[in-house]
Amino acid sequence: MKLLITGGAGFVGTRLARTLLARGMLGGRTIEQLVLADQAPAQPELLADVRVQGRVGPLLAACESLRDDNFDGVFHLASAVSGECEADFELGLRSNLDSTRALLDALRARTQAGAPATRLVFSSSVAVFGPDPARPLPPQVADDTLPTPQTSYGTHKLVCEHLIADYTRKGFIDGRAARLMTVTVRPGRPNGAASSFFSGIIREPLAGEQAICPVSPEVSHPVSSPQRTVDGLIAVYEASRAQLGGRMALNLPALNVRVSEMLAALEAVAGPSVRARVRFVPDPTIQGIVAGWASGATAERAASLGLLPEHSFEDIIRAYIADNAANPAALKGLKA
Amino acid sequence: MKLLITGGAGFVGTRLARTLLARGMLGGRTIEQLVLADQAPAQPELLADVRVQGRVGPLLAACESLRDDNFDGVFHLASAVSGECEADFELGLRSNLDSTRALLDALRARTQAGAPATRLVFSSSVAVFGPDPARPLPPQVADDTLPTPQTSYGTHKLVCEHLIADYTRKGFIDGRAARLMTVTVRPGRPNGAASSFFSGIIREPLAGEQAICPVSPEVSHPVSSPQRTVDGLIAVYEASRAQLGGRMALNLPALNVRVSEMLAALEAVAGPSVRARVRFVPDPTIQGIVAGWASGATAERAASLGLLPEHSFEDIIRAYIADNAANPAALKGLKA
Repeated sequence: MKLLITGGAGFVGTRLARTLLARGMLGGRTIEQLVLADQAPAQPELLADVRVQGRVGPLLAACESLRDDNFDGVFHLASAVSGECEADFELGLRSNLDSTRALLDALRARTQAGAPATRLVFSSSVAVFGPDPARPLPPQVADDTLPTPQTSYGTHKLVCEHLIADYTRKGFIDGRAARLMTVTVRPGRPNGAASSFFSGIIREPLAGEQAICPVSPEVSHPVSSPQRTVDGLIAVYEASRAQLGGRMALNLPALNVRVSEMLAALEAVAGPSVRARVRFVPDPTIQGIVAGWASGATAERAASLGLLPEHSFEDIIRAYIADNAANPAALKGLKA
Repeated sequence: MKLLITGGAGFVGTRLARTLLARGMLGGRTIEQLVLADQAPAQPELLADVRVQGRVGPLLAACESLRDDNFDGVFHLASAVSGECEADFELGLRSNLDSTRALLDALRARTQAGAPATRLVFSSSVAVFGPDPARPLPPQVADDTLPTPQTSYGTHKLVCEHLIADYTRKGFIDGRAARLMTVTVRPGRPNGAASSFFSGIIREPLAGEQAICPVSPEVSHPVSSPQRTVDGLIAVYEASRAQLGGRMALNLPALNVRVSEMLAALEAVAGPSVRARVRFVPDPTIQGIVAGWASGATAERAASLGLLPEHSFEDIIRAYIADNAANPAALKGLKA
């Protein structure tokens, strides 16, 4: 089979590609070709695999040529992140709405020319939920909580969920949308996501660096590890429509955790000197965005697919440390 | 003030224009200019008013020039109807999604150039609600019922609701979305809407013609008269944001009525010989679309604006008869 990952050079896309290549199979079929499309080049380790082809460039420009491709499946992860969309409205529209529409229309053109419907997994986000002025969020958002997004990013994700549901209803694609929780601990540097600090307050102290937490320790948030997130995307791809329980997007599993609990877990795993590298410096912009997010989530339909959240945030930190065993710089704070 | 009605030659647009011109005022300001934009020419009676300007052509093509206009307010009613969108997917995307997006971006360009945010009322629809395979609809859909549309038309309306909420949040427009119930009794001929028969089974018998009802007499549906619908759009325009109770779309008032009750009302108002002109001939396509619609609706937020549904379907029929007092052809069935 031939697969496409949009955003295939991003963090989740890279990990998804690595996991798929290691499995070799998806939905009972052998993965013969895996195309990683992104604005940036894919990881060299992935490009070295004979099954992998990299394509570099804006997704919007690439969609026209997708009409001539014959992908069996697509993981559509490419997206501008929340902070970017708030800062640059047109970037958000182009990257998150127009690109998805162009992708869907390319796949529709194939179906209308007689090809079978391409299976597509869309990475939506818990950011579809937000407190409407007159309608506060429940403590934990469920699969069927009314989405009232309070960011452009969340709005675009919700819009794409509904377009994908309608293209699927019409038989143009076999689409599924999974709402990712905040993925932590991300490696590398902070990115433009307002949620970036949920990784930074763990990653930087472990690397021996100071970190700033821009929100109150009382802030609670639904998070998931990178690998559970990738496992969730794969399970949603492989599920039958009956198992999915409808066309609507589903929540991926969340560990609902307070910032104070994240830092207590850091101290339990890595010691008080590592924990002490985190300082609280409120940032009103980020506080404002985070105040519009869900403080927790449930994932009933994902659970029926066998997907469960991590047991504890300590597990998430330990997994990050294990992932970086061969990268001493990422963990040099542990030895200090 | 200068107002724009998109879909200004349509039935609701025409009635809205007539009502606005008769009032002369909107939101405490004098209406100096009223532009009626539509693919068809506006009604001659309206064009005869010195305040009215007609613009004929596709909305999508007209939006670029809207950047140079200075509308204080917009009623955005232009839309392909449900049956059209199911039959022609691209028409629906173009007419209902791309045109709205172009309109919003034209208004955004004005705001970003320093103009005050244009007030915009969007005619959404009760068709945003539908039964997801795993999630049946409640007997009556409320303002905050989870929308899971089962038609492209409903999907596009929901998507536009959310785009309008986000453009409003960013200050690019002052947008409000009101979900219209099925408007009945519409004059004229059947249109491409799957709901067309909700008017036809009253209008045709009153005109002395046979009518076919394509669904079971047990089908229940939320309806509203043309004038209550227009009054609702005006009230939503005039409401303060605090009165609206949030940025999310609100339901306009609905009279929840079964087809059998509609026909009993017809008999009560017009007599058994008029009622006898309606035959039941099931149409599986229309039955399928209607089965995906809400059987009733509540409108709590509209009620807080003073908007209430009609008391009875007999009142709706009597209003239609009064509206057509000068049109003997429309009522010739009454005298038979």
